[in-house]
Amino acid sequence: MNQHFRAVSLNHASRLLNHGPTVLVTSLSGGRRNVMAAAWSMPVEFTPPRIAIVIDKSTYTRELVAASGVFGVCVPGAALAEVTFAVGTESGRDIDKFEKHAIRTLAAPVLGVPVLTDGCSAWLECRLIPEPHTEEAYDTCFAEVVNASADARVFAEGRWSIRDDNRALHTIHHLGNGIFTRAGEILDARA
Amino acid sequence: MNQHFRAVSLNHASRLLNHGPTVLVTSLSGGRRNVMAAAWSMPVEFTPPRIAIVIDKSTYTRELVAASGVFGVCVPGAALAEVTFAVGTESGRDIDKFEKHAIRTLAAPVLGVPVLTDGCSAWLECRLIPEPHTEEAYDTCFAEVVNASADARVFAEGRWSIRDDNRALHTIHHLGNGIFTRAGEILDARA
Repeated sequence: MNQHFRAVSLNHASRLLNHGPTVLVTSLSGGRRNVMAAAWSMPVEFTPPRIAIVIDKSTYTRELVAASGVFGVCVPGAALAEVTFAVGTESGRDIDKFEKHAIRTLAAPVLGVPVLTDGCSAWLECRLIPEPHTEEAYDTCFAEVVNASADARVFAEGRWSIRDDNRALHTIHHLGNGIFTRAGEILDARA
Repeated sequence: MNQHFRAVSLNHASRLLNHGPTVLVTSLSGGRRNVMAAAWSMPVEFTPPRIAIVIDKSTYTRELVAASGVFGVCVPGAALAEVTFAVGTESGRDIDKFEKHAIRTLAAPVLGVPVLTDGCSAWLECRLIPEPHTEEAYDTCFAEVVNASADARVFAEGRWSIRDDNRALHTIHHLGNGIFTRAGEILDARA
């Protein structure tokens, strides 16, 4: 559905989240599916690639992830800012957010989780690493990234390429209350 | 030393890290002190404000934090990109990074950790919540934010104000290999 996506080497997977973008968490269990926004995620290990992500225990996503042990992380581009905010404020218990927002997905090849490509710069397939204490105390879920893919127009060979001509795919970073900042100017800090 | 800093309400502290900036971790134990860069941090709770941050077990910072149980998190502005990258590649076991880079600090009022104000948009004082398993398995340290302050020119009343006239204070987000992206354009995603 988006012919620009290319596999990302697992040793580069952390780069997709390294700079703190707000992401979409996709989930599937039995016939149930959901998508929510998450501003709180981070890599925790390069190899094997592992992440931590906060998924509140009250959410439908948490219920589905607990049941299936897998989830997707999709990195929305700037063009998806409104959809990202919307799916962060609605509950999948009430509506099918994919239908409401006309979000198309594909079943990712390794775990079968639904992932978005239209408007996203990347997606990761994640397998939950059960950590009952941190899940309960901090809503913090650890997971291993088992597969990743990115739109080569904005991420290729392990590097983001943020340019004026691919602004719609730039990552978005939630400041709060529906206001995002777009990843913008590049700063080269090497001496 | 920077008269623009104002106290941040603890219920707004998560906003300082919500959008995934790369931060500086400051530490102090006995007469020893250090500063390092950390790209991997996130809030995990609004109230009480809690965060998770990855501090590799091989680092001098981790040694000092384990000894003292406290640390500072400072949010560097774009003008500090080179210093941020430098202190992320050097070890405080070898040199005093504050002296080398002429970094001035003040002792934060609650925990006494050294924090930077010149060139930073905000700082947080953090008390480690001992979690031996996640510290060992994922280098992930949980902490409670007990005090926070921000430069009112870029963060006031719980909100970031990212404008053309305060670019030097915009947050930076590490893409990898010394390349950062600066928080840039504002997107209002509310319907």
